[in-house]
Amino acid sequence: MFSLEENQLLTQTGQGTAMGNLFRRFWLPVLIATELPEPDCPPVRVRILGEDLVAFRDTAGTVGLVDAHCPHRRAGLFFGRNEEHGLRCLFHGWKFDATGQCVDIPSVSNGETLKKNVRITAYPVQEYGGYIWCYMGPKDEQPELPRMEFALVDPSHRFITKRRQLANWAQVAEGILDPTHFSYLHIPISRDKDQWGKMMYGANFSTDKIDPRMRWVTEDGCPSIHVQPLPNDLGMTVAGKRSADGDESYWRIIQFLMPSTSLAPGSSKGENYHGQTIVPIDDGSAWVYSYTWNPERPLSDQERKNLGSGSAIHPAMDDQFLPKRNRDNDYLIDREMQKTETYSGIVGIGEQDAAICESQGIIFDRTKELLVASDLGIVRMRKLWLEAARQLTQGIPPKAPAHPDGYKVRSGNAVTHNSVPLAEVMIERFGHVHGHLGDLYDESLHNR
Amino acid sequence: MFSLEENQLLTQTGQGTAMGNLFRRFWLPVLIATELPEPDCPPVRVRILGEDLVAFRDTAGTVGLVDAHCPHRRAGLFFGRNEEHGLRCLFHGWKFDATGQCVDIPSVSNGETLKKNVRITAYPVQEYGGYIWCYMGPKDEQPELPRMEFALVDPSHRFITKRRQLANWAQVAEGILDPTHFSYLHIPISRDKDQWGKMMYGANFSTDKIDPRMRWVTEDGCPSIHVQPLPNDLGMTVAGKRSADGDESYWRIIQFLMPSTSLAPGSSKGENYHGQTIVPIDDGSAWVYSYTWNPERPLSDQERKNLGSGSAIHPAMDDQFLPKRNRDNDYLIDREMQKTETYSGIVGIGEQDAAICESQGIIFDRTKELLVASDLGIVRMRKLWLEAARQLTQGIPPKAPAHPDGYKVRSGNAVTHNSVPLAEVMIERFGHVHGHLGDLYDESLHNR
Amino acid sequence: MFSLEENQLLTQTGQGTAMGNLFRRFWLPVLIATELPEPDCPPVRVRILGEDLVAFRDTAGTVGLVDAHCPHRRAGLFFGRNEEHGLRCLFHGWKFDATGQCVDIPSVSNGETLKKNVRITAYPVQEYGGYIWCYMGPKDEQPELPRMEFALVDPSHRFITKRRQLANWAQVAEGILDPTHFSYLHIPISRDKDQWGKMMYGANFSTDKIDPRMRWVTEDGCPSIHVQPLPNDLGMTVAGKRSADGDESYWRIIQFLMPSTSLAPGSSKGENYHGQTIVPIDDGSAWVYSYTWNPERPLSDQERKNLGSGSAIHPAMDDQFLPKRNRDNDYLIDREMQKTETYSGIVGIGEQDAAICESQGIIFDRTKELLVASDLGIVRMRKLWLEAARQLTQGIPPKAPAHPDGYKVRSGNAVTHNSVPLAEVMIERFGHVHGHLGDLYDESLHNR
Repeated sequence: MFSLEENQLLTQTGQGTAMGNLFRRFWLPVLIATELPEPDCPPVRVRILGEDLVAFRDTAGTVGLVDAHCPHRRAGLFFGRNEEHGLRCLFHGWKFDATGQCVDIPSVSNGETLKKNVRITAYPVQEYGGYIWCYMGPKDEQPELPRMEFALVDPSHRFITKRRQLANWAQVAEGILDPTHFSYLHIPISRDKDQWGKMMYGANFSTDKIDPRMRWVTEDGCPSIHVQPLPNDLGMTVAGKRSADGDESYWRIIQFLMPSTSLAPGSSKGENYHGQTIVPIDDGSAWVYSYTWNPERPLSDQERKNLGSGSAIHPAMDDQFLPKRNRDNDYLIDREMQKTETYSGIVGIGEQDAAICESQGIIFDRTKELLVASDLGIVRMRKLWLEAARQLTQGIPPKAPAHPDGYKVRSGNAVTHNSVPLAEVMIERFGHVHGHLGDLYDESLHNR
Repeated sequence: MFSLEENQLLTQTGQGTAMGNLFRRFWLPVLIATELPEPDCPPVRVRILGEDLVAFRDTAGTVGLVDAHCPHRRAGLFFGRNEEHGLRCLFHGWKFDATGQCVDIPSVSNGETLKKNVRITAYPVQEYGGYIWCYMGPKDEQPELPRMEFALVDPSHRFITKRRQLANWAQVAEGILDPTHFSYLHIPISRDKDQWGKMMYGANFSTDKIDPRMRWVTEDGCPSIHVQPLPNDLGMTVAGKRSADGDESYWRIIQFLMPSTSLAPGSSKGENYHGQTIVPIDDGSAWVYSYTWNPERPLSDQERKNLGSGSAIHPAMDDQFLPKRNRDNDYLIDREMQKTETYSGIVGIGEQDAAICESQGIIFDRTKELLVASDLGIVRMRKLWLEAARQLTQGIPPKAPAHPDGYKVRSGNAVTHNSVPLAEVMIERFGHVHGHLGDLYDESLHNR
Repeated sequence: MFSLEENQLLTQTGQGTAMGNLFRRFWLPVLIATELPEPDCPPVRVRILGEDLVAFRDTAGTVGLVDAHCPHRRAGLFFGRNEEHGLRCLFHGWKFDATGQCVDIPSVSNGETLKKNVRITAYPVQEYGGYIWCYMGPKDEQPELPRMEFALVDPSHRFITKRRQLANWAQVAEGILDPTHFSYLHIPISRDKDQWGKMMYGANFSTDKIDPRMRWVTEDGCPSIHVQPLPNDLGMTVAGKRSADGDESYWRIIQFLMPSTSLAPGSSKGENYHGQTIVPIDDGSAWVYSYTWNPERPLSDQERKNLGSGSAIHPAMDDQFLPKRNRDNDYLIDREMQKTETYSGIVGIGEQDAAICESQGIIFDRTKELLVASDLGIVRMRKLWLEAARQLTQGIPPKAPAHPDGYKVRSGNAVTHNSVPLAEVMIERFGHVHGHLGDLYDESLHNR
């Protein structure tokens, strides 16, 4: 059973905490790049791992991510003037470049000398995969960006969002790590052939037959769970194996990547893929960066329109990136729909997940849970998180950040004969026991 | 003077507190029965004595009142599916019946075995008097329901509501325990003959003469207070005696019943009676369950309409049972009305009480008060509450729950000669020194 | 560097704190007199230095400022009846006069005797300069009112407001104590000749040339700071000296008066003058009482209209005295305006100050700041505040309250030859080295 001490270790990510230090060893998405649309555009407030920062795009297009306050008298730099290669405090005109270096102190006579010794916290950032990423760890430990497929494909092949979730990061992650719940939370209950498609692909989707995957998921609510570690403590492959037709099994294979990325299990070859990266805002809320991509073709305008108005893992959102169906309105649960159409009565995969996750409480008390066999992925992942956090406390850095290429894996579904073990399923489905994509995108990586 | 320790003892009702344990020895109203209108209707959130629960009515119509969270991974059961004799968690389909027993675990292969050992907190409930009541104490100490008259009459004879009050339960109770304040807070100041009637019976009431009771209450603001204990520590009779015309006195007699029920003092024989039961939501707010009934006849449609739109002790409320005139809008106090029409300038008896009670602060600091002779009922009742709480801490259970028939008392007003003492007034007015109704309703009790 | 202990000492003003005790030795504005417009008008809630009070104007027009709660059972006196020379509690009719003396206890038979010994906290108040002021210190230390010019002129010569600021009092004060920031936060960036005037005097202002003061302030952002103590620890004169044309300097001279009054530096002879007095509501918010006056002539209707709709130091406000451009709406910062018209992009001097002040955090952490030469006024004033607070703790009262005439000083601007020191500038501009107005208003003082 999880102890209170372990629960705190897992859930606390502020400065100086063990888990916080672990997160700070990884590149983390921090904004959608278009939140800073052009040089010298308005700064944006950022709160990440409990730290208050401000992001700005300077005259050259370089993004800065710096302390939210001017070091002089702590005025908020969010209100500052973003001009001529730096952000200038409104109070006395002190100016900082994207590296945090003070480049102008016009308000005192010794400003030219003084400014050389004035510097504010600034974290390295990179634009990648449509997001802005930051690295908040020790400078000499800065790794390369993780080579995630959604970020390596041409922008025309992907669609990205972010959403605010009103709960601790770890329970968001654990919800995604659970192959079983799809047979409950996310299923239709009528056997109407369009229902599954609508749930997965949005209101305009229609089909001429029931997707057999829907049938398998709804008919076998008790998948066996198979977990396979990824090399270098990168995370793990967590798969649910359900009965399919005849002697076959239906596999749904999640890739969970340190510290907090989950690639979704539902896609067949040729379909769109989905993934989510969770980043703590503070210990009571988190951003979920969600991405859909197709390795083989650009997404169509209709797909973008559907995803943008809320479908698959992307909720319909307000202009603050809070889902429109949220905790304050009970996710607009429709009890009649719950009786007759869908298991949850809540519209949207992301919203259904949010309802569960947020209903566990802001910081879920793991000392009170009752884990069962189907929670194997959660148990294993908790072990990996806590071991990595504890080791870092003892000076042993995590291995994963040093292996960015290890992130170039794919998740998805597969149909195999009953007797095939997960390792072979992986090879059959992805051509590699860990779903690794080999040298695919090695060229585009150099071009991004 | 009340000490800080006593104030905490009186006001804290969470799990493990002395007063909380005392409350848990009594049946407590927890919902209006119509909040769960039919089998398999949507579940309802309940918070009582600081505990978060969810109530549901199963397929057979049986009400369950269970832990708000699934024991597996603590998902909120409020969002659950109420179907086929149980409430099913949205996350993995675990299902619980109204007794809290887990009856299905479809998500793991050993679910059939496992479920037998899985049980969540569930409190016994009964529907009674239009409310759903629960018992949260030790199983083997479960008493019978208190035989309160409003609950024993035919439903056509009663009207019930509940309202949320934004203050600790004890100050709500103490406000009701005070015979004197009626001469101030609740009176008209004009001598307009319709005013009193409107205040008491709603906007449409009119009369051809000033009710002499109004005159007596407004003319004698300094009643003498008479307190008489009820048998078996059931509570007490608290009466205010005012000068009436000539040699007569006007008595207003409250029955206060453990732990937190007050029967109102204003009714003459044949009129409607009123009562209120206060149940802590947590230490900062409480539900006030309010009931009006007539022992002799059904309430008319007009009476129900008046009561439902806010009159007597029933405020006009929003759909969350919060009075429309509330703390956030200063109870819509009308200073012009306060100057010329009513003492308070606030419309509604319940709202006037709420304004005072909530203005004392969330948890009123009794170490700072200045008690006087007119507070006799409060002083005595505090003594009874604290003694019962302390004795229970020492293993001595309260006597009152074991005497449900003792709750079958009536309150109301009386006019007598000056010289008649309270005990005789009780016999004259109610036929019994404690206002007990004898074997009245013994038949209907068996039929309810 | 400021220590955490010093920061707490400076910012905490509740009962029993050192700085709170210091504030309580001064007369403090507490309401605009028109908030209590007439005898027996509705009472008004007051929160000051963390104390909850209620103010009322009795039948004779006398203002009372008393404990927010009745001593009997702590009901809120805000809801009370203001009638016949006293405020009467709604609960049981206990009545208190403006001195806090209980004058009626109608609810108990020994009320006539009892009332003599019942008294609630009541602070002396005076109406003065359009405000109601109170004194919350020891009775035998009560000083005279400070002889501030805005309060001594005929009411036709002044315009007064108050605004709520959502930050600790000290950072509001420190913002005002800073002569340098005017060259940044408050300046236009276009050289449009009307811009300055509009910023200073409101939308309808136009001029045929650029005010040279605007040019000097914008062109010299690095004034030298000159501080001169006022006699009797009354405060200090803090001046910023900027290059003007040729061999001349442009002085902007602030008078900062204990404990929290600042007279503004921008006015030339004959122009309107401005001042602000900051009074803690509690440690997280403050009232800023702001006044504009002209010693020589009444303000015109147009001036009143401009000031009332938001200009100079007076923001446009809602009916709760909260600026319409406030923290919740990011002060309606207009990033396009910030690029092309004004340094801040925020409309209004008061709102610009509020944006900075509130962006420092509710209680600004002074251990993290980086003070420079231009912060001299702040450094000196902190020293004066802390010394006075610490001395009072040791039983030595502040000297300033005993010298009310010392407050009769003027602030403003001056243009002099480069070589003239501040002391001589003061004599040249104001006729007195401390800007004192001599026996001016001595007659009107007797008449007010």
